Amino acid sequence: MSSACTACAVLTIDLDALAANWRLLNARMAEAGGECAGVVKGDGYGLGLAPVACTLHAAGCRTFFVAQIDEGVRLRAVLGGAVPVYVLCGLLPGTAEVFAEHELAPVLSTPEQIAEYRRLPQAMRARMPRPAVHFDTGMRRLGLTVAEAEAFLDDNDAVSDVDPAVVVTHLACADMPAHALNAEQNALFRRLRDRLPGARGSYANSSGLFLGADSFFDLGRPGVALYGVNPTPGRPNPMHTVVRLSAPILQVRKIDGPESVGYGASHVMGAGSRVATVGVGYADGYPRALSNRGHGALGAWRVPVVGRVSMDLTLFDVSAVPEHEARPGAMIDLIGPLIPIDEVAADAGTIGYEILTQLGSRYQRVYTGGPEGAAA
Amino acid sequence: MSSACTACAVLTIDLDALAANWRLLNARMAEAGGECAGVVKGDGYGLGLAPVACTLHAAGCRTFFVAQIDEGVRLRAVLGGAVPVYVLCGLLPGTAEVFAEHELAPVLSTPEQIAEYRRLPQAMRARMPRPAVHFDTGMRRLGLTVAEAEAFLDDNDAVSDVDPAVVVTHLACADMPAHALNAEQNALFRRLRDRLPGARGSYANSSGLFLGADSFFDLGRPGVALYGVNPTPGRPNPMHTVVRLSAPILQVRKIDGPESVGYGASHVMGAGSRVATVGVGYADGYPRALSNRGHGALGAWRVPVVGRVSMDLTLFDVSAVPEHEARPGAMIDLIGPLIPIDEVAADAGTIGYEILTQLGSRYQRVYTGGPEGAAA
Repeated sequence: MSSACTACAVLTIDLDALAANWRLLNARMAEAGGECAGVVKGDGYGLGLAPVACTLHAAGCRTFFVAQIDEGVRLRAVLGGAVPVYVLCGLLPGTAEVFAEHELAPVLSTPEQIAEYRRLPQAMRARMPRPAVHFDTGMRRLGLTVAEAEAFLDDNDAVSDVDPAVVVTHLACADMPAHALNAEQNALFRRLRDRLPGARGSYANSSGLFLGADSFFDLGRPGVALYGVNPTPGRPNPMHTVVRLSAPILQVRKIDGPESVGYGASHVMGAGSRVATVGVGYADGYPRALSNRGHGALGAWRVPVVGRVSMDLTLFDVSAVPEHEARPGAMIDLIGPLIPIDEVAADAGTIGYEILTQLGSRYQRVYTGGPEGAAA
Repeated sequence: MSSACTACAVLTIDLDALAANWRLLNARMAEAGGECAGVVKGDGYGLGLAPVACTLHAAGCRTFFVAQIDEGVRLRAVLGGAVPVYVLCGLLPGTAEVFAEHELAPVLSTPEQIAEYRRLPQAMRARMPRPAVHFDTGMRRLGLTVAEAEAFLDDNDAVSDVDPAVVVTHLACADMPAHALNAEQNALFRRLRDRLPGARGSYANSSGLFLGADSFFDLGRPGVALYGVNPTPGRPNPMHTVVRLSAPILQVRKIDGPESVGYGASHVMGAGSRVATVGVGYADGYPRALSNRGHGALGAWRVPVVGRVSMDLTLFDVSAVPEHEARPGAMIDLIGPLIPIDEVAADAGTIGYEILTQLGSRYQRVYTGGPEGAAA
């Protein structure tokens, strides 16, 4: 609805901040001789695959990761050829032709996928970039077990057939630097990866890039930090803010006596208080879990969410804001300079990743900065 | 992504069940001389505005409600002329021309909106269907306060100028039949509505249609019940199931010894257990709050979510399912006959409305039944 949006909420996406975030993370890797890829799955973490990928590419990003095959197809159409696109779900049955047609690289994650890859006609494999292989070192989600990885590495024919360009693992606890699993995954990955000297090691996700140089290997794989979410929970956020979500007040209601507001009459306001209604609700990805917990900002004032977040509407207590400021048409930030996305997530009992990827389709999306044509 | 989707999750939407749900609710109203509108905001509660609206129209629905102006514009394009479309956010400043151009009817909800409507040139008003007026009887969200409503009703010129076709209020506690606010809202609405004999009274939402004939008035306004969510929480669901969400297993992992699974190593599984990975995560609207709490169904087996739901992937404990059933490619229902949407919502600490409207865009969407061309 972005082109025809009338009087609705505005989601502003700062593509220059996105580029700066990639450069910041890439510089960490470059000091150690590595580089950063860009993870753009989930529609560029909810911010739009095409503008996000164009911006990262213009900033210098030369390797991309997506989760699903269809995301890879869309990304290839955005990027054109030459830049490798890795598809994390791997070579699922019946999908090889799509990989070949769109020059996508599978991240092989089971012995069956490796066997299937090896069975493909050489001409078909030649149309894909060299694949990645996924070793599971502790996430127990996708990837070869250690035993399966060792069996693969012991099989010279298999290794030479597959000839992986990248070897991947995924950290389970990178946002908890003290967790014992970090050292375990690191040692395991180092041992397996050293047996594939022709492949680049891709180990660190956003938080992993802040675990120390031991975690760098060759190819960083940041996702959420690019989009401004704090990769170092509990410490200051080193990333630039990318997203701002603002919505106009539709109506301000003066409360005459003690009156409940919203569904379930879950909150009672006293006489003289004022409640502002904005046209954003959980159908827009503003979580219902923020009911009676979240905050917005109106100018310099923090204004609490009151009552239950409903499907299309949310109520804020603006009693502390002067009447001439809290008026219909005034904008309330739901995510913004005073309301970091990490705070919104914490209030909703989740993480910034979920807030980002659930950002709705009814917002007017405004892209600022970025390379020419990125937001077209 | 529905057309090019490869090896991904499948969201099946039963348009015949949707039509049957509308008929069931409309029959309740028809017995009392009324009828049911269709509420199709939030992209038809996440199921697709066009197929949903076409199906409801073919079933006999002749009045529609949306939340936002742009939804109205899209709906008018789907329905063509003649059928009134009410826009609940009302006549926001600067939007009158859009209302007129697309023959949308505003739901006037403040004295300012009524004044603005009265100032519009007669020729512009004539291009809109007659408006609705929204009286707030206890929700404190949108609508005229009782004092504002009475001032409007006392002003014969205003009433005759606006000439509302419908008078609307919204129930705060309809899903809690014993809540005292129900009787209060009913008495208040009846008193105000009786002063506008030329307008239809629209009072009951989905749950309101089960509060008894007192709540029927002229025009029911069901939303979520049409889509199969239970409008009578705590009692059997009278509605037909509309949605099924199934995802293929990507990989089955055998656990060798006590091993943690997923982010944060939040769940430990014992030797001999098996965990299945499916390609649906919170970026698809499968809430992260289901981590270690939700359930899927594989054939006749209920399989618990284990570990944290991640962005693109969710893990299920399939240890109790025979190996030849729990294999890559086998489908796990995330919402389905054994896993009602209301259960998914309860496990996630929310309501079916939020699960529906957050259904993601990466699913292959399959529409069954419905009128010819509805799913085109």
